Amino acid sequence: MNSKKIYKQTRKIEDVIIIGRGTVGGAKESQGPLASTLDRTFQDSYYNEKTWEKCESKMQKEAINLAISESGISQQEIDLCLTGDLLNQCIGSSYCIRDLKIPYYGQYGACSTIAQSLSIGSMLVDGGYSDYTVCGTSSHFCTAERQFRTPLEYGGQRTPTAQWTVTGSGMLVICKSDNFNFQNRVAPKINAVTTGKIIDMGIKDITNMGAAMAPAAADTLITHFNETQTTPADFDMILTGDLGVFGKEIVMKLIKSAGFDLSRNYQDCGEMIYNIKEQDMHAGGSGCGCSALVFCGHIMNKLRSGELKKVLFLGTGALMSTISIHQGESIPSIAHAISVSG
Amino acid sequence: MNSKKIYKQTRKIEDVIIIGRGTVGGAKESQGPLASTLDRTFQDSYYNEKTWEKCESKMQKEAINLAISESGISQQEIDLCLTGDLLNQCIGSSYCIRDLKIPYYGQYGACSTIAQSLSIGSMLVDGGYSDYTVCGTSSHFCTAERQFRTPLEYGGQRTPTAQWTVTGSGMLVICKSDNFNFQNRVAPKINAVTTGKIIDMGIKDITNMGAAMAPAAADTLITHFNETQTTPADFDMILTGDLGVFGKEIVMKLIKSAGFDLSRNYQDCGEMIYNIKEQDMHAGGSGCGCSALVFCGHIMNKLRSGELKKVLFLGTGALMSTISIHQGESIPSIAHAISVSG
Repeated sequence: MNSKKIYKQTRKIEDVIIIGRGTVGGAKESQGPLASTLDRTFQDSYYNEKTWEKCESKMQKEAINLAISESGISQQEIDLCLTGDLLNQCIGSSYCIRDLKIPYYGQYGACSTIAQSLSIGSMLVDGGYSDYTVCGTSSHFCTAERQFRTPLEYGGQRTPTAQWTVTGSGMLVICKSDNFNFQNRVAPKINAVTTGKIIDMGIKDITNMGAAMAPAAADTLITHFNETQTTPADFDMILTGDLGVFGKEIVMKLIKSAGFDLSRNYQDCGEMIYNIKEQDMHAGGSGCGCSALVFCGHIMNKLRSGELKKVLFLGTGALMSTISIHQGESIPSIAHAISVSG
Repeated sequence: MNSKKIYKQTRKIEDVIIIGRGTVGGAKESQGPLASTLDRTFQDSYYNEKTWEKCESKMQKEAINLAISESGISQQEIDLCLTGDLLNQCIGSSYCIRDLKIPYYGQYGACSTIAQSLSIGSMLVDGGYSDYTVCGTSSHFCTAERQFRTPLEYGGQRTPTAQWTVTGSGMLVICKSDNFNFQNRVAPKINAVTTGKIIDMGIKDITNMGAAMAPAAADTLITHFNETQTTPADFDMILTGDLGVFGKEIVMKLIKSAGFDLSRNYQDCGEMIYNIKEQDMHAGGSGCGCSALVFCGHIMNKLRSGELKKVLFLGTGALMSTISIHQGESIPSIAHAISVSG
């Protein structure tokens, strides 16, 4: 009855391409191995703004403008924006979009937001409800740390499983192929999206988010393989958002017990974005900006160059708040998958 | 090139109907004029849960189950859930959905969430990406008050412009008409959705949210009229979400100066949900639950009975946080419109 659906969680995307991307990163990101893939970086935590929150909105705005500019379209042609962030009430996004006058639906998927916004955006563009959609997100180490953990001035010790919230924003512009003037440019194509379910295995340790999110990533991966009748071998790379060193290990074990082998081509953005040992990053990077910077920068480059032909990208998010943790709750997590080809 | 778009902000919906609704309200709501339109009410602020936040998740879960049950489908047939709420990191929704195992994208539109989720849901169902989508939201007076304002124990005085956050959850199930067994039942139809832009006229008074949101409501209303070449006379009712007494007046003035007359058929859910004077509600109701309860209960009843044939419903949301207000920012607002017929 419904041709766009592939069983329950996976939707087929007929014709959506990524025509522009913008990435803005902070100091630690500019010292990491993917620094050269970032369009713009800054070296303090404020970026000439008065507060960290305003800095986060500024990163988003610059990333959007960079993505629009690279797309070769005008801002007036953007008819939909789907963004969100980690801040209470998603203020990183709303104070950014306020100045841009673009029709807007705020998204909340925690660190899965780049995948969530790109998934919904792909369906809306594919279905003919938007010509040009901006999808993306941001995070900022300082805004996240003081909101979710302790005041920065406190200088709390970090556990070995702790991850470092990435300071950065990644944005994408998508459209149908008819709406893009290729002119020798390559535009990666969205093939399918798999919507995640919330999985909660009872983890309550907010310094071990990778472990909390890993079962959600495994669930969505297995669902994607089963619903599309693919295996890890069908992809050049399988990429999770921000599980970090320990979360990644858990995913590999869970996937193996389901009969799939991730040993050849599985990577995690949280491991890739920093020189973990040299930069003392414990279990790696995290935050909405982690997968957004890696996907919009490094992965987009490799899809465009042809080095990667087919990537299965999973945004991973932990949906707790400080209130829910204080009330003794565990961490509900989610992962959304997007199959992209170069 | 793009048949589903009507100019820039409005999208045409070909075939989406609302087949079920569920509403759960608190004590104040059960004493208001629309009490009889609520499926279920409870009289304390906890509803047998240990915390107000868990109570909010419980309301959502009951409203979803009521909506699914009324639709005559099984929970397993729901393939997408789009919900959100006012709480930090939208925990009202994520801890609800955790237990339901439904593919989920979290939405953040503040008090516009019912309209935002119904808009996105309508496009995704219409485009063939979901067979049965649940859309909805919740708010709770106690969770909102302590998060956004002062501890309840403090007993702060309320200003005349202050509104009362509704305790309640409203949920809808939508699908294509082919997917519904009508059996003499009436299922209201979504005709078009207009995505709002963020408007901020510089209001910083968080006890006067109606004034902050009114310009966004007016902007989306005028956009909808212009893009669809309609006027207020084409609707039996034009309904805003939670502007309250003062916000409603501002909308009427703004719309009048744009050449449209709202004097005949304009109402606001914030005025309708309480007996404002008798219940001492100052400027009226507010919160995600306000428009959700009024639309899913009262308006759905009248659309089903034929008393209302065409309604233009606007969800209205204020996108600030306590952090942004403490940093001296004004209140960015948004409104999303949905044209529904009985």
